[in-house]
Amino acid sequence: MPSRYDELMSLSLRRGFLWPAVDLYGGFAGFYDYAHLGARLKRKWEDLWLSYFLGLGDNYHLIDTTTVLPEASLKASGHVDHFTDVLVACTKCGESYRGDHLLEAVTHQEHEGLGPAEIDAKIRELKLRCPKCKGTLGPARAFNMMFPVGVGPLGQDRAYLRPETAQGVYLNFKREFEALRRKLPLGLAIVGRAYRNEISPRQGTYRMREFLQAELQIFFDPATFDGELPIDTVREERLRVAFATEKAEATATDHTVDALIRHGLPPFYVYHMVLVQRFYLDALGFPRDRFRFAELDERERAFYNKVHFDIQVQQASLGGYKEVGGVHYRTDHDLSGHAALSKTDLSVLVDDRKVVPHVLELSFGVDRNLWALLDTGFRTGERAVLQIPPALAPISIGVFPLLSRDAMPARADALYRELRGRFNAFYDEGGSIGRRYARMDEIGTPFCATIDHTTLADDTVTLRERDSTGQVRLPGGGLPEVLRDLLDGRVRFADLGTPVTRP
Amino acid sequence: MPSRYDELMSLSLRRGFLWPAVDLYGGFAGFYDYAHLGARLKRKWEDLWLSYFLGLGDNYHLIDTTTVLPEASLKASGHVDHFTDVLVACTKCGESYRGDHLLEAVTHQEHEGLGPAEIDAKIRELKLRCPKCKGTLGPARAFNMMFPVGVGPLGQDRAYLRPETAQGVYLNFKREFEALRRKLPLGLAIVGRAYRNEISPRQGTYRMREFLQAELQIFFDPATFDGELPIDTVREERLRVAFATEKAEATATDHTVDALIRHGLPPFYVYHMVLVQRFYLDALGFPRDRFRFAELDERERAFYNKVHFDIQVQQASLGGYKEVGGVHYRTDHDLSGHAALSKTDLSVLVDDRKVVPHVLELSFGVDRNLWALLDTGFRTGERAVLQIPPALAPISIGVFPLLSRDAMPARADALYRELRGRFNAFYDEGGSIGRRYARMDEIGTPFCATIDHTTLADDTVTLRERDSTGQVRLPGGGLPEVLRDLLDGRVRFADLGTPVTRP
Repeated sequence: MPSRYDELMSLSLRRGFLWPAVDLYGGFAGFYDYAHLGARLKRKWEDLWLSYFLGLGDNYHLIDTTTVLPEASLKASGHVDHFTDVLVACTKCGESYRGDHLLEAVTHQEHEGLGPAEIDAKIRELKLRCPKCKGTLGPARAFNMMFPVGVGPLGQDRAYLRPETAQGVYLNFKREFEALRRKLPLGLAIVGRAYRNEISPRQGTYRMREFLQAELQIFFDPATFDGELPIDTVREERLRVAFATEKAEATATDHTVDALIRHGLPPFYVYHMVLVQRFYLDALGFPRDRFRFAELDERERAFYNKVHFDIQVQQASLGGYKEVGGVHYRTDHDLSGHAALSKTDLSVLVDDRKVVPHVLELSFGVDRNLWALLDTGFRTGERAVLQIPPALAPISIGVFPLLSRDAMPARADALYRELRGRFNAFYDEGGSIGRRYARMDEIGTPFCATIDHTTLADDTVTLRERDSTGQVRLPGGGLPEVLRDLLDGRVRFADLGTPVTRP
Repeated sequence: MPSRYDELMSLSLRRGFLWPAVDLYGGFAGFYDYAHLGARLKRKWEDLWLSYFLGLGDNYHLIDTTTVLPEASLKASGHVDHFTDVLVACTKCGESYRGDHLLEAVTHQEHEGLGPAEIDAKIRELKLRCPKCKGTLGPARAFNMMFPVGVGPLGQDRAYLRPETAQGVYLNFKREFEALRRKLPLGLAIVGRAYRNEISPRQGTYRMREFLQAELQIFFDPATFDGELPIDTVREERLRVAFATEKAEATATDHTVDALIRHGLPPFYVYHMVLVQRFYLDALGFPRDRFRFAELDERERAFYNKVHFDIQVQQASLGGYKEVGGVHYRTDHDLSGHAALSKTDLSVLVDDRKVVPHVLELSFGVDRNLWALLDTGFRTGERAVLQIPPALAPISIGVFPLLSRDAMPARADALYRELRGRFNAFYDEGGSIGRRYARMDEIGTPFCATIDHTTLADDTVTLRERDSTGQVRLPGGGLPEVLRDLLDGRVRFADLGTPVTRP
């Protein structure tokens, strides 16, 4: 792993963002736990995601479904037969490898999507042996990545941990359609766990066996969806895109909405690319030159997708652009599959026409997104500071007495108690004030309020901003409202008043 | 099930709170999905719970850990050996039963905690046969309720879906202690899934195989904890308690804090009972006479608990008082178990003393709590209304034009668009205004704003309260602030101004 990865994991371990699970028993490959800062960051990210994506439509809703699904439902979706990676085991030491990763380690090219026979041929051609013991590699075989679960006292009801949250939504589509307004488009979102028995979990948190997804499934009428969207309102936007044919060379180039439509992408698809890009650039604050959509070619993309672009963020800790989500046009693959196997009509009536809705899936790996925020936001140098959006910071405000004497600690404690009912606040009186600011900077706390001698005289406090390190003096009583406005983005720190200087 | 259960499930299915999972494939016993109203209710309940329980201490934090745990960690906790129910299978038809439930169905008494030999003896004594086919019942045997999961390409790493969220916290205790202030008490909370392979899931949502827990583990120094708590501030409270010896007869009687301490409960335990009771009576609004703590006797309580009271709410739909949570004094059972098996010192230094912290667990079944809110809150009669706390309602405000003509729909739509960025708002112009209010009452929407002829003249709106059906007229521009204050409980509807009358 690049040294940047170690730097971030060191921050994470030391301060408590996330860390490998079950270290007491020697670890548990592919599983990570969220510590107290990471768990807060995660919940705030979920809130922001829900607010943004459910806000895209009046008929968009959050639901929540089981993480265990019976075999029939995953047979219908195609996962029982097709959700496989190619496994290659060493005949001597028994170590297992993902076939494409074996090839990639030698050729430094991606080999995702090759079948067992192709992997075998490549292994022979390259004369590969076991990287661990140099033994002979056995034949490649397809390996299903789902975790089987036996339900019932004899484990007789075969089920799986879900490999994606999406299937629970498809199983509920018809019931929700009927409980709601019976109108398309209908959006159904889930934020929840999914599980994949990765052959060789690696790259730290990037390829986990248990992970959190945030997915919005938009069910629409393919005959009318393009016309229902205000595509004209986004025509001026430029999208950062790398096509499958150019990925190796280019990082990304700017494309107009019309150019992408002329290129053959459905207008509704391009419209939603714009909304996703806005989420990354405007709501999450990623730099434009580190964001892109990357097209997957036919071999790479999931078996259920007709159009498939990854959402990617460039991350030094992971060696380049890495997937944090995807925009997937799944057509009627899933609803038709479930309709056929369950012998249930999943079509709905739209203006007296029977329609099997198509699905556009906006899919996000929450763990990968949080890591991308750490990677992009954490800066070292003169000072270590985590620049994440204020609304996402695990601690919103630090409250300090300038000195641990006179009435300062008591006043600071009173302010802290007033704030902590409404905000994630943190009280600290240990060490120099500079050291306390530094500790807050490092974990992304956007604001710190300090009680000093002047406070004791006139009840004002100083408020310091993380990114600029600027300070302003404010009436202490108004701090909750000011902080609310700052966190919600209604007020900018620079507009708060005259900066004060302090050592 | 009582007919009240059917009434609630009918509401739930029709409007979209929760419903049996995977109906397309004939259902999936013990699994339920949350529909759009239920998922919102659940997330708001979680927010309220986190705010209340993390607010109990400055050193209380949210974390999040994996739902899959390796066998060693659950061996140390005792779950591999002791987390069992007694299974009895019919030798003729093969149907499986939980032993204590078989006996309970005949004797109408609880038999939780009996071992296989005791169950066998009772079955012989009562001459029980298979309830389904009248065949001979086979010998009772212990059945582990955890779901095994094989991790790795050959499934060689034996693991389980966690049976409680608690173990993930214990595994992280030492790391959190060191990343945080190195002080006790330290509180670590998780809101997450747990799984139990129930032999016979029954009573609808009450005994599920996949369920959501909200648990706070408080790690403390047993030598000093009582003295650190402001127990004097709660001495005036009366606690609703049923002791194990009196449970069958009494529903609950009031006890003073001092009486419970004299009875032998640790002061820290009684103090936290008060805080839990306040959560139910004050924050969630349950009627006092439907709430109680019920003591479990030695046979009934979990193997890891020294003191164990269930938190119970009386629910007509479930036939009486039913568990919604528990207050568990787990001593150092878990930390010492993990220390021994992992050969890791889990003690911490407190004032130069080495202490293995004890644990007080405040445990809540989220699904059971949501059901209790429906059971207690849903009233039928002159009108159907779901009386749940306004802060928990899936939709916070309905916005209606009085009539679908003149400029009313446009004005109502503009108000809706203004509100929906900050609140869960719902726009409706279908049917009579009375019918629209009724639809909102039924799902617990606490407030409705209506645009009428007067609005067009003076920009006021009427605001209607769900519980009183009273209405007041307010300036439309001030509605967001008024609504925020109402939902946060800072303002009461009755104090908003002069009621208006309307047909």
